[in-house]
Amino acid sequence: MQEDHKEYLKFALKMSKFAKKIMLKYFRHDNGEKYKADNTIVTKADTTINSYVIKQVKKHFPLHSVNGEEESFGKSDFVWVCDPVDGTAMYAKHIPIAVFSIALLNKGEPIVGVVLDPFTNKTYYAVKGEGAFLNGKQIKVNSLGFENMKTMGHIDVWPYWGYDCNDVIKVLSKNTYVLGVGSVTHASMYVATGDFSYVVFGGTKGKNVDIAAAKVIVEEAGGKVTSFKGTNQPYDTDIDGAILTNGVLHDKILEIVKQHAKKVES
Amino acid sequence: MQEDHKEYLKFALKMSKFAKKIMLKYFRHDNGEKYKADNTIVTKADTTINSYVIKQVKKHFPLHSVNGEEESFGKSDFVWVCDPVDGTAMYAKHIPIAVFSIALLNKGEPIVGVVLDPFTNKTYYAVKGEGAFLNGKQIKVNSLGFENMKTMGHIDVWPYWGYDCNDVIKVLSKNTYVLGVGSVTHASMYVATGDFSYVVFGGTKGKNVDIAAAKVIVEEAGGKVTSFKGTNQPYDTDIDGAILTNGVLHDKILEIVKQHAKKVES
Repeated sequence: MQEDHKEYLKFALKMSKFAKKIMLKYFRHDNGEKYKADNTIVTKADTTINSYVIKQVKKHFPLHSVNGEEESFGKSDFVWVCDPVDGTAMYAKHIPIAVFSIALLNKGEPIVGVVLDPFTNKTYYAVKGEGAFLNGKQIKVNSLGFENMKTMGHIDVWPYWGYDCNDVIKVLSKNTYVLGVGSVTHASMYVATGDFSYVVFGGTKGKNVDIAAAKVIVEEAGGKVTSFKGTNQPYDTDIDGAILTNGVLHDKILEIVKQHAKKVES
Repeated sequence: MQEDHKEYLKFALKMSKFAKKIMLKYFRHDNGEKYKADNTIVTKADTTINSYVIKQVKKHFPLHSVNGEEESFGKSDFVWVCDPVDGTAMYAKHIPIAVFSIALLNKGEPIVGVVLDPFTNKTYYAVKGEGAFLNGKQIKVNSLGFENMKTMGHIDVWPYWGYDCNDVIKVLSKNTYVLGVGSVTHASMYVATGDFSYVVFGGTKGKNVDIAAAKVIVEEAGGKVTSFKGTNQPYDTDIDGAILTNGVLHDKILEIVKQHAKKVES
């Protein structure tokens, strides 16, 4: 592994350890739940973690910038993209599914990604070209096709941004078990470990921090990640829909998405 | 509380303690995952817990019978309905969302219900007429209407039995945040605590053990539970669809379900 990549990974892992502490601290009570203008929730955990990451990046990588869900900083080819709590709605309701997510991107391409699930103490991470790991053990996507309930996947139902995926659910529920677990990044980790076979994500608007880490981790686990058009895309700007799969299913799901996902008017 | 009800509750709580031990034992590895004829999964935890419950009912209540997901016994007006692991697909994938569920029914009506989440150590229970509790503390449904992402609900997408709810998701995702967390009983507990506002469950075929405990717990938490026709129904036979809500939303969701849920041909 390149020396600088090793340093970035070490830094991202350090951020995730801080996030774990904060997420557990505010989980049971007094999470300061508030609704934002876009109908999503923010808690004390989100803002505390976000501020910390910005402070630490400024200190350790003063030439890098940060895209955080709650707060951003700077402009550079190297961008730290951070979702302090992905699945905040579940987090605010004390349902232990949310994860912390951080990635370093170079010109829009994630090169280091770390996702931490504080509730089951799982750290997922990947460096581009070096494989994907869960708590130090290499992970791999599965090789399932459409095999009814054996093939599990996650689809977000979120009607405000990007694409409406209701009809995608309708088609995919015919030959897979469709879930909506409350965190697209966490669901993507299940793809990386081979538990799920796909994630379909309708995209973002004015909020680009959801799946940068998931992108590199799923790919390094042997999976495939594209936009709804089947192309690569930058992950530090609005996401034009994303499909994260075990690879085997990618083209089939892409075809279904192209046919059935509807762009949300906004 | 009536003496016999107290005894039933004590027994159900004892069963849940055993279930917790077994669910945690087989969770991380060697869960013996196997697919059944109906495309659902069974693990060692399911069969071990189910056998234990039957043995214990025979011993303590020899005149009662048992409807278990994996194994049943006897015929009586008093039926113990047990889902040893609700959310087995998630359980088999090491995703900590599954719960144990047991209820005692008198002529089809649940009078005692216990649901245990072994992963966050939560025990939900209710006796008819006595309120609903989580780890000893009384719980209550929320009073939200359709308030966009503030109103969260769970809808199962399971195309083999009962009703196809894809179009219900489509309608409800316009003004609520629709999830599919992988366990209808667990989601129903979130209704009882006020975190979620509703659950829509497409029903069962040849498998009647899913929501008997949830029925009495949600009702005792101040919520409302009916079939897809808006009526009460027996909970020890096939479920003709079920809607479990905070009460406020019940009639509105019933209307949507009547219009948009499609009976699955089988």
